[in-house]
Amino acid sequence: MKLNNIKSLWSDGKPVVNGWLAFACPFSAEIMAEQGYDSITIDMQHGLVGYEVATTMLQAMRASTVVPLVRVPWLDPGDIMKALDAGAYGVICPMVNTAEDAARLVSYVRYPPLGSRSFGPIRANFSAGADYGQHADEQVLCFAMIETAEALANIDEIVSTPGLDGVYIGPADLTLGLTGKKYPRGFDREEPEMVEAIQHILKRAHHAGIKAALHNGTPEYAARAVDWGFDLVTVSSDARLLAGAAQASVKSLRAVLGKTTSSDAKPAGGY
Amino acid sequence: MKLNNIKSLWSDGKPVVNGWLAFACPFSAEIMAEQGYDSITIDMQHGLVGYEVATTMLQAMRASTVVPLVRVPWLDPGDIMKALDAGAYGVICPMVNTAEDAARLVSYVRYPPLGSRSFGPIRANFSAGADYGQHADEQVLCFAMIETAEALANIDEIVSTPGLDGVYIGPADLTLGLTGKKYPRGFDREEPEMVEAIQHILKRAHHAGIKAALHNGTPEYAARAVDWGFDLVTVSSDARLLAGAAQASVKSLRAVLGKTTSSDAKPAGGY
Amino acid sequence: MKLNNIKSLWSDGKPVVNGWLAFACPFSAEIMAEQGYDSITIDMQHGLVGYEVATTMLQAMRASTVVPLVRVPWLDPGDIMKALDAGAYGVICPMVNTAEDAARLVSYVRYPPLGSRSFGPIRANFSAGADYGQHADEQVLCFAMIETAEALANIDEIVSTPGLDGVYIGPADLTLGLTGKKYPRGFDREEPEMVEAIQHILKRAHHAGIKAALHNGTPEYAARAVDWGFDLVTVSSDARLLAGAAQASVKSLRAVLGKTTSSDAKPAGGY
Amino acid sequence: MKLNNIKSLWSDGKPVVNGWLAFACPFSAEIMAEQGYDSITIDMQHGLVGYEVATTMLQAMRASTVVPLVRVPWLDPGDIMKALDAGAYGVICPMVNTAEDAARLVSYVRYPPLGSRSFGPIRANFSAGADYGQHADEQVLCFAMIETAEALANIDEIVSTPGLDGVYIGPADLTLGLTGKKYPRGFDREEPEMVEAIQHILKRAHHAGIKAALHNGTPEYAARAVDWGFDLVTVSSDARLLAGAAQASVKSLRAVLGKTTSSDAKPAGGY
Amino acid sequence: MKLNNIKSLWSDGKPVVNGWLAFACPFSAEIMAEQGYDSITIDMQHGLVGYEVATTMLQAMRASTVVPLVRVPWLDPGDIMKALDAGAYGVICPMVNTAEDAARLVSYVRYPPLGSRSFGPIRANFSAGADYGQHADEQVLCFAMIETAEALANIDEIVSTPGLDGVYIGPADLTLGLTGKKYPRGFDREEPEMVEAIQHILKRAHHAGIKAALHNGTPEYAARAVDWGFDLVTVSSDARLLAGAAQASVKSLRAVLGKTTSSDAKPAGGY
Amino acid sequence: MKLNNIKSLWSDGKPVVNGWLAFACPFSAEIMAEQGYDSITIDMQHGLVGYEVATTMLQAMRASTVVPLVRVPWLDPGDIMKALDAGAYGVICPMVNTAEDAARLVSYVRYPPLGSRSFGPIRANFSAGADYGQHADEQVLCFAMIETAEALANIDEIVSTPGLDGVYIGPADLTLGLTGKKYPRGFDREEPEMVEAIQHILKRAHHAGIKAALHNGTPEYAARAVDWGFDLVTVSSDARLLAGAAQASVKSLRAVLGKTTSSDAKPAGGY
Repeated sequence: MKLNNIKSLWSDGKPVVNGWLAFACPFSAEIMAEQGYDSITIDMQHGLVGYEVATTMLQAMRASTVVPLVRVPWLDPGDIMKALDAGAYGVICPMVNTAEDAARLVSYVRYPPLGSRSFGPIRANFSAGADYGQHADEQVLCFAMIETAEALANIDEIVSTPGLDGVYIGPADLTLGLTGKKYPRGFDREEPEMVEAIQHILKRAHHAGIKAALHNGTPEYAARAVDWGFDLVTVSSDARLLAGAAQASVKSLRAVLGKTTSSDAKPAGGY
Repeated sequence: MKLNNIKSLWSDGKPVVNGWLAFACPFSAEIMAEQGYDSITIDMQHGLVGYEVATTMLQAMRASTVVPLVRVPWLDPGDIMKALDAGAYGVICPMVNTAEDAARLVSYVRYPPLGSRSFGPIRANFSAGADYGQHADEQVLCFAMIETAEALANIDEIVSTPGLDGVYIGPADLTLGLTGKKYPRGFDREEPEMVEAIQHILKRAHHAGIKAALHNGTPEYAARAVDWGFDLVTVSSDARLLAGAAQASVKSLRAVLGKTTSSDAKPAGGY
Repeated sequence: MKLNNIKSLWSDGKPVVNGWLAFACPFSAEIMAEQGYDSITIDMQHGLVGYEVATTMLQAMRASTVVPLVRVPWLDPGDIMKALDAGAYGVICPMVNTAEDAARLVSYVRYPPLGSRSFGPIRANFSAGADYGQHADEQVLCFAMIETAEALANIDEIVSTPGLDGVYIGPADLTLGLTGKKYPRGFDREEPEMVEAIQHILKRAHHAGIKAALHNGTPEYAARAVDWGFDLVTVSSDARLLAGAAQASVKSLRAVLGKTTSSDAKPAGGY
Repeated sequence: MKLNNIKSLWSDGKPVVNGWLAFACPFSAEIMAEQGYDSITIDMQHGLVGYEVATTMLQAMRASTVVPLVRVPWLDPGDIMKALDAGAYGVICPMVNTAEDAARLVSYVRYPPLGSRSFGPIRANFSAGADYGQHADEQVLCFAMIETAEALANIDEIVSTPGLDGVYIGPADLTLGLTGKKYPRGFDREEPEMVEAIQHILKRAHHAGIKAALHNGTPEYAARAVDWGFDLVTVSSDARLLAGAAQASVKSLRAVLGKTTSSDAKPAGGY
Repeated sequence: MKLNNIKSLWSDGKPVVNGWLAFACPFSAEIMAEQGYDSITIDMQHGLVGYEVATTMLQAMRASTVVPLVRVPWLDPGDIMKALDAGAYGVICPMVNTAEDAARLVSYVRYPPLGSRSFGPIRANFSAGADYGQHADEQVLCFAMIETAEALANIDEIVSTPGLDGVYIGPADLTLGLTGKKYPRGFDREEPEMVEAIQHILKRAHHAGIKAALHNGTPEYAARAVDWGFDLVTVSSDARLLAGAAQASVKSLRAVLGKTTSSDAKPAGGY
Repeated sequence: MKLNNIKSLWSDGKPVVNGWLAFACPFSAEIMAEQGYDSITIDMQHGLVGYEVATTMLQAMRASTVVPLVRVPWLDPGDIMKALDAGAYGVICPMVNTAEDAARLVSYVRYPPLGSRSFGPIRANFSAGADYGQHADEQVLCFAMIETAEALANIDEIVSTPGLDGVYIGPADLTLGLTGKKYPRGFDREEPEMVEAIQHILKRAHHAGIKAALHNGTPEYAARAVDWGFDLVTVSSDARLLAGAAQASVKSLRAVLGKTTSSDAKPAGGY
C-alpha cells in the first residue's frame, strides 16, 4: 500500500497544506491536484458533491502526489465506508460532539478488531495497492470535527479516543456554536474568545498526542495557524478561489474601461 | 423573447466583457455567472464539456443576467443547432476559413429563408420565450473565428457574409497559423506582426459593419483590445482562473512557512 | 436573501399550489417550473431522484418564480442539510412519528442556537443571496409528514414543536398506517374515517399555530382540501401527469382509428 | 434477431402510433414505453438528449414492447451508426434534401454491400440478438425527413432511393421551408397549400413503394393523417404532454380556488 | 406483480446462482444479466455504485430474466426503501448483528402492519406491476448479512425474526470478525473454524425455516456450498471477472511473445 | 511532455499489446489499466462510450502506465480534436478509404504547419505536460483503419500519407467489405483470401515505413499477428472479456450442480 504522505510530512515535523473541493467536477479536481497542495479534501458535506462524482474526482487525482481525503456528510457508517472503499486516504467527520461520537467514528474507519469497518476496498485495492487490507488501519486518517459548544466541553474525552488521528476545527460552525449570532459568520476569527477556543482545542489535541487541523480563508491566517502549532491547514476552496479570481479579473478590466461599461446598468436577466 | 443584452450594450456603444467556461460543471458555471461578466461562453471545442453537461450549465446560468454563448466544436450543423435549441444566445464557430465556411455557418444559425436551421427550439422556447421562433434570427449572434492564414487571406469575403454578426479572434491559433512555431503559443500577443494581423482583422470587420471580438489572457490586454476598438473581449477562463488562484494561494502560504514545508521534496505520488 | 414566496402567500391568506417532481431530469423540472405552480417539491424519497441530479434540478428551476422544496428520503441530518445547502427553501420530512422526531427534524433545519444545522450554504449563498446565513432560519420551511398511527397519536406533541412550520399529510401511507390493507392504496381518500383523520390533523396543526399541507391526486380533491383549510396542496406529479397525458393521447387516437390498430395484439416485446 | 414490430404492423395493414422523447431521462422513457405506443422515438435532434443518456433510455425501454427509434441530429455517419449500434431499430434523419443525401443516409444505415455501415453492434448484439449482423439490414428502418422546398422539388428522386424505408414529414420545418414566415410555426397544418404539399409527399412515397410518416400535435390530426394514408403517425412528445397536463392541472385547481390565489400576482422569482 | 423467480426456484428445491455488480455501468449490468445467472445483485455497499447509476442498472436488467437484488450500504431506512421503490426484488443488508437490527431491517422492507416501509413504489409500480403494493410483502426478499462475532453470538435470535427471508454470509468480514488478522482476507475459507462457523449459520437458518446464502470467489467453492445446503450462492463479481479475464488474456499473449515484450520493463507511467 | 511509451517499445523492436474499452465506466477502465496492457483504447465508435464519460475514463487511467488511445466515431475534426485535447496519446480513425481521407485525418491530428489542428490542449496540458504544444506532433499517434475494398485498393497511397503513423485493420469490416456476406462476421480470420489481404496491408505499411496494427479476438491469433510482423495487437475488449468470464463461471458452476438447476427452465422474465 502506498504510504500516506501526510504521515511522512508529520514525521518530518512539517505542516500539511490542504486544498478543498466543493465543485462536483473531476477536471477541476485534477487541476487543483497539480497546484502544490500536500493533500486535497473532497467536501461531501457542504460541497455540491455526491457519491458518484466524488469517485471520479478521486480517480482524477490519483495520478497526482496529493493525498486524497473526504469530508463526509455526517457521522454515518455507510457514507464513511463508501468514501474509504473508493480510495480516500482519510475522512474528516463533521459534528463530533461526544466521546461516543468519536468512538463511533473510529469504529467506522478501522477494521476489526479495532473497529467495525466492513471489508471490501473495491477501488482502494487497485489505487492504493493489493495489500490495502493489511495496512489501511495505519495509513488511513480519521479526523473528528470540533465545532460546537458541546464538543468543546467534551474535548478531552474526544481527543483521547483510541484510533483518532486528529481534530479538525470548523471556525464558522464553532463560532456559531459558541457565540450564536453575536459575530458574523466565517473563517479566520479574530475575536479573542474564538482565538482562545481554537488554541485550546489545539493544545488539548497535542496534549493527547494527536494532530490538529484548521480550516482557513486566507494563506495569511493559515500561516498564523501553523505558527500556533496546527499540523494541517486548509486554505479556501475551489469555489471561493474561482469566484474571487473571476471577480477580481472582471473588476480589474472594468476599472480600466471606466464608466462606459455595463457594470452599473443591471440588465433584466433570465436567459 | 428576452432581448440579447449584448446587442443592447453594443447599441449603447459599450464593449462586452465575456467569461469562458472549460469545466463541465453547472455549479462553477452558476458561480461564474454572478461575477460581473456581460456574457459567458461555454467552450465545447477545447473545454472539457460535452453536450449533456452543457445543457445543465445553460440551465444553471439562466437565472443570472449574463448572455449565454457556446463555442461549438466545429462547423457542424448538428452541434450548432443543438446548442441553439438548448438556449444559447449565440455561437462562436472555430476555423472559419473561407466565404463558403462563413455562409454555411450562417445558414446553420438562421431559419429559412435566411438559412437552413431546423425548427425545434425545445428549451429556448421556455428559457428565451414562447415567441423565440419569431425573433431568434435577430437576437441570436453568429461569430466566425478567424485563426488561420487562409482565413486572413479571405477576411474581406468572410466579414461581408450576410447574417454574420462578428468575427472572433483566437490569438493562439492565429499565431500558429501565421507564423508556425516561430513564437511561443498563447494569447496576448506582443509581436508586431501579430498585433498588426489582429488589428487588421478588427478593421476589416468594422469596415464591413460587423463586430470584432478577441480572446485575451489578462484584463490588461483586454483593456488594450477595447481601446483598439474590439466590441467583445474574453478574459481568461474558469480553468485558468482557478489554477492561477490556487497556485498563488499555495505559494503565498509556503512563502511564509519557509523551507520547512514539503514543496521541495516531491513525494512518490499515485493514490 | 430572497424572501420565501410561500410565506408571502400565507401572509396574504392564500393557499399554496405545489408541484411534485419524481423524474431525475433538470429539463422536465425547468418546464414544470413554468406551469403556474407556487412551489415545486423535488421528491428524493419516492421519486427516482438522487442528490446529484437534484442539484441540477434546483439550478434549472432557479430562474422561475416557484419556491423550490425537497422531500428528503428520511429523517437524516446529512441528507437534510445537503438539500438545504444546495438551495432548497424548505424540506418535507417523511415519517415523523414522535415529538422527538420532530425536534430532531427542526434541529437539522435550523442553525444554532435554534438547532444544530452545520453552516456552509455553498449554493444557497449564491442562489438565495449572500446574507443567507442571517435569514435562513426565518425563510426556510420545515414540514413534518404525518402518516402513521403513531404520528396521529402524538399529533399534539408534534405540532407544538418549536421551529416546525407545518405538517404534511401523505394520505397513502396514513391510510396504510391507520387501516392496514382494509382500503386500496392511494391519495384522495373518501372513507369517512380517513377524511376525519385528515381533518383532525389539519385542526390540530392550526390549533398549534402551524400550517397544514395535503398531497392530492386531482385538482378537484385539492380544491376540497383548500376548502377544508389546508394551506398548501400538492397535486399529482410529473410522472403521473406524463403517464396520464400519454395514455389519454394514445387512447384518443386509437379510439378514432378503431379495431384495425395494434392495441389488441400484444407483440412479443423486448428490444 | 427480434423482429421489428413496425414491419409486422405494416404487413397487417395497420398504422403505427409513435411516441416522442425530448427529455434526457431514462425513467420518463420507461414510463412512456408502457402507455400504448407501437414505437417510440428518442429525439436527438431537437430533444435535449445527448448520446450518453440516449443509451440509458434505450436500455430503459428494452423490456417494453415498443420499437425504439432515434431521430439523429443530422446526416452524420458517426451519430447514425452509434445510434444503431446502441440498439435503435431505425433512424429518422432530418433535412434529407437530395437524392445524394438519401443515398448517403442509406449507406450509413446498411452494411456492405448495400451500404457502408461499420460492423460492431455492441449493444444490439445483446438487445436484439446475437444474429443481429445477419438480419439488421432487413429489420432496421431508415426514414428520410422531407422538410424543405429543395426536398419537395427532389421528392421523386429521394423516394426512389434503394434501401430507404420511408419518408418522415416535419410540418413545422416544411411550412417554414415552403412559405417562410407567412404562417405561424407548428404542426397540424390547415393551410390548403401545406395540406397539399403533405399529401403530395405521401403520394409520391407510396407511388415509389415506401412508407410515409407524419409528425402531429394532436391525436385528432394524427387520425386524419392515418385516414389520408400515412403509415406512421407521431403524436406530441413527452415535453409537450407534461407541460400541457401540468398547466391544465394547475388551471383547473386555480379556477376552483378563484381569485384569491397567486396566479395574478407575479412574485419576484429567482431562487 | 411479476413473481419473484428466486422463490419459484426455491419452491422447486433448486439453488439460486447469483451474480454481483460492482461497476457503476448499466451496459455491463445488461450484459451480465444475459450470462445465465438466476439473480444479480447490485452492490451499493462495497461496489463503486451510487443511487443514480443503480437505477439505470435496474432499468438495463429489466428485460432479462434475472431477479434484481440490491446490497444496500448499511441498515439505513432511506437507502433501503429507495432501492425497493426503484424496483429491487430484495435487499441484502450488511452487518446485521442483533435481533433488534434484524427487526429494524424487516420493518424497513415490509409495509404496515408488518413493517414501516413508506408507500410510493414509483418505478416498481411500472417494472413489477401496478399491483405491486398488494404483493410486494410476499415477493420482496429480505436478507440479513451475518458477518461479525456479535451476529454469530445472536444467530438464533436473528434468524427467528418474523419477516426475514434469509441470512447472507460475507466470509471476508466474518473471518475478520471472528479471528481478526489471524488469516488472510478473502472468500472461500478453508480454515476448519471458519467452515464450521459458516455451516453453523447455515444450520441455524434452516432450523428457523429461513434460507441461507453464501458469497463465493469461485464456482468450485460455490458448488460445495450448494452441496452443504446453501440456497443461494454468489460467485465472484463483474470487477473480479473482468480483471481476471484481462490479466489471463495478457499473460497468455505475453507467454507466447516471450521476453521480447514490455512486461519486464516498467515504463514511467502517468499519462 | 511525457513520452509515448508505444514509441519507446517500437524503438526497442517490441510489439505493443493493446486493450480495448467498450464500457462507459471509469472504474472498469481503471482496472483494465492495471492488467498488463501497454496501451488501452477507448472505443468511441462501436463502444457504448460518449465524450463525457470518455474524459473520466482518460482521467481514471492517468495514474497507470498504459498509453491511452481513442478510437473516434468517424473522420470528424470536432471529435478527433476533442479526444486529443482531453489527453489521448493517439487516435484510431475508422473507414479511411482514400489518400484524401488519410490526409484529412493527419491534418486533424497535427498542428500547423503540418496540419490544421486547433490549439487548446485543455487537459493534455495538465496530464501530458505543460510543454504539450511543442511535442504533441511527435508523440501523438495517428492510425488509419483499413477495412474496405476501396481502402485496400488505395493502400499504397494511404500508407504514404505524410504524418500517418500506422494502419489499423478491423477484420470484421474488412471481411464484410471484401467478401460481403460470404463468410461469418468476426475477428481472427482463417480464410486464405482474408489472411492474404491482412498480410498485404501489413507489408505495404511496412514498405512505406509506417506501423501496422490488428484487432484480434484471442491471444493466440494476436501472437500469430505479431509473428507476421504486426507492431500493435489488440486482444478482445472489456465487454467480451466480462461476458466470456461470467458465462464460463456460471457454466462451470451449473455443470457441477447438474440438472437440478434452473438453466433449463426459462423463467418469464421482465423485472
